[in-house]
Amino acid sequence: MKPSLAKGTRDFAAQEIVRRRYIIDILQNNFQLFGFQPLETPSFENLATLTGKYGEEGDRLIFKILNSGDFASKVNAEDWDNKDAKKLAPQITEKALRYDLTVPFARYVAMNHGQLAMPYKRYQIQPVWRADRPQKGRFREFYQCDADVVGSTSLWQEIELLQLYFKSFAQLNLPIDIQINNRKILSGLAEYAGISNQLIDFTVALDKLDKIGKAEVQQEMLSKNIPQAAIEKLDFLFETSGNSLQVLAQLEAIFKEVSIGLEGVAELKFVIENLQDILPTASLNFNITLARGLEYYTGAIFEVKAQGVQLGSIGGGGRYDNLTEVFGVKNIPGIGVSFGLDRIYLALEELNLFPENIQNAPKILFANYGNTESLAANKAIAQLREAGISAELYPEDAKLKKQFAYAEKKGIAYLAFLGEAEIKNQHIQLKNLASGEQQSLSVAAMIDYFMA
Amino acid sequence: MKPSLAKGTRDFAAQEIVRRRYIIDILQNNFQLFGFQPLETPSFENLATLTGKYGEEGDRLIFKILNSGDFASKVNAEDWDNKDAKKLAPQITEKALRYDLTVPFARYVAMNHGQLAMPYKRYQIQPVWRADRPQKGRFREFYQCDADVVGSTSLWQEIELLQLYFKSFAQLNLPIDIQINNRKILSGLAEYAGISNQLIDFTVALDKLDKIGKAEVQQEMLSKNIPQAAIEKLDFLFETSGNSLQVLAQLEAIFKEVSIGLEGVAELKFVIENLQDILPTASLNFNITLARGLEYYTGAIFEVKAQGVQLGSIGGGGRYDNLTEVFGVKNIPGIGVSFGLDRIYLALEELNLFPENIQNAPKILFANYGNTESLAANKAIAQLREAGISAELYPEDAKLKKQFAYAEKKGIAYLAFLGEAEIKNQHIQLKNLASGEQQSLSVAAMIDYFMA
Repeated sequence: MKPSLAKGTRDFAAQEIVRRRYIIDILQNNFQLFGFQPLETPSFENLATLTGKYGEEGDRLIFKILNSGDFASKVNAEDWDNKDAKKLAPQITEKALRYDLTVPFARYVAMNHGQLAMPYKRYQIQPVWRADRPQKGRFREFYQCDADVVGSTSLWQEIELLQLYFKSFAQLNLPIDIQINNRKILSGLAEYAGISNQLIDFTVALDKLDKIGKAEVQQEMLSKNIPQAAIEKLDFLFETSGNSLQVLAQLEAIFKEVSIGLEGVAELKFVIENLQDILPTASLNFNITLARGLEYYTGAIFEVKAQGVQLGSIGGGGRYDNLTEVFGVKNIPGIGVSFGLDRIYLALEELNLFPENIQNAPKILFANYGNTESLAANKAIAQLREAGISAELYPEDAKLKKQFAYAEKKGIAYLAFLGEAEIKNQHIQLKNLASGEQQSLSVAAMIDYFMA
Repeated sequence: MKPSLAKGTRDFAAQEIVRRRYIIDILQNNFQLFGFQPLETPSFENLATLTGKYGEEGDRLIFKILNSGDFASKVNAEDWDNKDAKKLAPQITEKALRYDLTVPFARYVAMNHGQLAMPYKRYQIQPVWRADRPQKGRFREFYQCDADVVGSTSLWQEIELLQLYFKSFAQLNLPIDIQINNRKILSGLAEYAGISNQLIDFTVALDKLDKIGKAEVQQEMLSKNIPQAAIEKLDFLFETSGNSLQVLAQLEAIFKEVSIGLEGVAELKFVIENLQDILPTASLNFNITLARGLEYYTGAIFEVKAQGVQLGSIGGGGRYDNLTEVFGVKNIPGIGVSFGLDRIYLALEELNLFPENIQNAPKILFANYGNTESLAANKAIAQLREAGISAELYPEDAKLKKQFAYAEKKGIAYLAFLGEAEIKNQHIQLKNLASGEQQSLSVAAMIDYFMA
């Protein structure tokens, strides 16, 4: 049997893992500095916990786990006779793989909110699974990385999460821009134009401005039956100019009577002004056309893009009113952000921003000359490892050429020779494989050399 | 809907995660020092990759993933009509959750052996899933942690992996004993007694000596139809005395004509003598009754136990002849060891060996006195975080009592007060919540205080 990977999945070998860990370590360190605490939920949940939370399309993409044992014994006879896959699925499966991190987080908070220090700040970095058709860059198993704080509506949390973004990406040396909007402003615009019941059609079209331009955005609005008069009333949206605070001032004037809009303007002003004061160099811009996640977000909306690469967003988030209502627990508002690990990885790779020293290869390979020499080598190796220097013995007394080839393939930087003569004079020949340079050192001197 | 966890699964909150990471970081660091490189395989594999590798019981415990979409359309009509769960399962599932780390590792090596630097040393720390009946300490999702080296039969690798065990557990401050045996010795004993075809019955009984004593072991052998004469011939097994090398010398005399037994003795002698020379203090003992994994192991067998706790083994491993034969690739022998993460965790907990400073709570909570003060606090917090000190602002201008309670519940050690007066004189009141001690410091002095 010739084995293969399951469709849409990947093996990760040393280099990818070490680079992914580099990213995750920096993020984790920042989460910790900001007072977020880790949470890990199980890979599978009760099917009922996940069903109905992601829309019809989402439900279809949830991986369901077949019940163990005699799964067919208790099914509805008619559904079985009809081979009705849709009706049978929930009868023969009761567990399903995590589809995102938000629903399991909500389930956790709903079950534990009485015990948690509120506001509860958690981060979570775990794989999720989706039965999507695999394609370039889209996998059936991938990591998500979320940080949320729930239990308070304080706008200082918007400022906190923006700082978390800026500080984390700064530490990754990845220059970013963050765009910010507020759902209340979009609602205000819809109300102002008399199209409150068409908010989604309106914002979906507006969100495409960057890609398709003003004329086509207006065309799309028309095609969605947004009245010409409303479109004209909103024409000023395409003519805004000035910095974020200036645009907000223009909106404030327009929103005179539209209280939801004024609320959105005030919130954004508070966030932008304070952040500017705390972090004057941060690239944060109000983007009135940003309209992501409106089925969920109720206040601030964020989007993060990397400068210098065409990758779409590498992060995003926003404020929501009710994390846990669907699980019967009310009044838990919150705000959360995601870090797009796969895209951050691609950005660092494309911009050559991974540090060179984050490889996993051992530093030194001791050549194998037979058992007496190997014993001596093992004693030296044990001392090197105690000092934190990675080293290994080639396990077989093979031709030196073969041992060299192993070191090269594995990316080992130094070869150490400890033969009969070296044992006698208690020195080791150390060869730098890149430069060819060779020196004769005691173990202690070797430790000094590598620790310097 | 009141949510619950899926049966046999757990949420992990901050304290458990931080402690698990403490263990994993130490193990990873040692793997790296020893030249092992990380590998991660997907959570699910093609069903055919896993089926038939774990015996009938194992096959039953594999979690299978229901095919997406119209899973019922292509099933065998007769099996469907009979509701034959066993025959239908492989027709409506084509993927299954990882059951252990060895089979995915073998699949990876079979697919990539041409590209790998051989011998290939990999470690892997990932969750696995089993449809076991959940009970105390047994979960349906749990972590495994394996290190293997494949592609060579060198006995220096036995010595290497034993050193890996001793060094890793020493760094965890967990005193251990390792027992070692060799399948060839057990085969030699069976051959010597003329019961080669009863090796498994013989060793299964022998392995119970610790628990049930000599009389019952011999009783069990009899009940398995091992001849009385053979049992008498093996009686010396219960009378061995002296240290490991002395017992090996006795065996050597007995094995005069039994070449497989002599081979086992020679291998063990090599391993024990060299390890003693490299690591004189290591507690490694030959245990002739140790007989784990004989369906798989062909040479050395290890078992690790923690001193001072009754937990069973916290690690084990052994040498095998063929990792990948089942996937059509021959001649890849190897040796591997496991670290039992859950039990190591329990041992460290029971022996109170987790360091106190590995908690995740932020160091400082800034009290919230309103927006002006919060802005000033945010500026101080940003500086503290830049210096690597975790700090956060309570997000709301709530009663101080409530803010105190939050700090206490979250395990935060210091409260910082930055009110109108403090802003004026550019100092912060810092209160140690454990001692009640309070001091007035500039931000710079505060950083010095925490970094000292």
